Amino acid sequence: MRRDNPWITRSSRLAYENKWIRVREDEVVRPDGTPGIYGVVEVPPSIGVVALDEEGCVVLVGQWRYTLGRYMVEIPRGGSEGNPDLLGVAKRELREETGVEADVWEPLGTVDVNSGITTDVQHLFLATGLRRAKEAGHLDAEEQIDVFWTPFEKAVEMAMKGEITEVCSVAALLKVASRAGGVKK
Amino acid sequence: MRRDNPWITRSSRLAYENKWIRVREDEVVRPDGTPGIYGVVEVPPSIGVVALDEEGCVVLVGQWRYTLGRYMVEIPRGGSEGNPDLLGVAKRELREETGVEADVWEPLGTVDVNSGITTDVQHLFLATGLRRAKEAGHLDAEEQIDVFWTPFEKAVEMAMKGEITEVCSVAALLKVASRAGGVKK
Repeated sequence: MRRDNPWITRSSRLAYENKWIRVREDEVVRPDGTPGIYGVVEVPPSIGVVALDEEGCVVLVGQWRYTLGRYMVEIPRGGSEGNPDLLGVAKRELREETGVEADVWEPLGTVDVNSGITTDVQHLFLATGLRRAKEAGHLDAEEQIDVFWTPFEKAVEMAMKGEITEVCSVAALLKVASRAGGVKK
Repeated sequence: MRRDNPWITRSSRLAYENKWIRVREDEVVRPDGTPGIYGVVEVPPSIGVVALDEEGCVVLVGQWRYTLGRYMVEIPRGGSEGNPDLLGVAKRELREETGVEADVWEPLGTVDVNSGITTDVQHLFLATGLRRAKEAGHLDAEEQIDVFWTPFEKAVEMAMKGEITEVCSVAALLKVASRAGGVKK
């Protein structure tokens, strides 16, 4: 199995940048030897949290996604803005978006999000032992969020039926369901 | 539940463009009324295929991902380049990447990939009734691909253990496993 980098980077320039993303255009030689360009959207790692309470409910958040122009229901997620303490980012994001803290944090692994275009690697966590946060924190100006506590089985059903379509949420919910020993249709 | 667009777009400009992506920077008024910008990475819809043969093996493809600088094992996936016939794109991509065709195509729903940044919506399919294609087609120059026929349960285990991390592959494999009535740890 070939595991060496078959690409050559000839040069690299910054094509666009804002507070959240950085677009780099590289001149490359492709695996087959032909020259070309590659536009890479650099995004710092992100986090996603499946937070389960003692009654078996998971917290979901609903917001209008500007990119796709529709309202989407997802697990609490957020960017790290380069903060290397991803568990800390996950704790803050959960608290700020939903007003809860968790005693137990378990990694669910990482997922590569849009690996043909972006560098986004999302770190997924399962949070349990939930309690209301003393300080709810404040949302970023970009965010205007609805919070839904939903029976876990119902959330999995939503992911299976296409009522939850955000891909990290689908992957994370089904990972937790699979660990629990199976998912019903 | 609020489902109206709480964002206002004041202006829009093209910030960067190549053959595969288009980066748009919009001047916006955010949901809380503050002004700002939003950089949207426009990507046409994409497809992903879980192709299962009669022996219960799924076809996986391995390639070096330039963005993240590592070798990744995924389900066959590809961009539509704006072709509205996404099933046709899926059929072509499966044939070109793995040399097989399928008699039965079943939609597994769509997933939103990186919904905070890109417009990518990936259409997932389950393909069965596989046979070797008469013409294998040819790969794009960007692609240099290894093909692995893997027992489906093993592929699900790889997704659960973090040996498959590409998020659409994880979501699609676990969706199929869930439909089949459960996933083992």
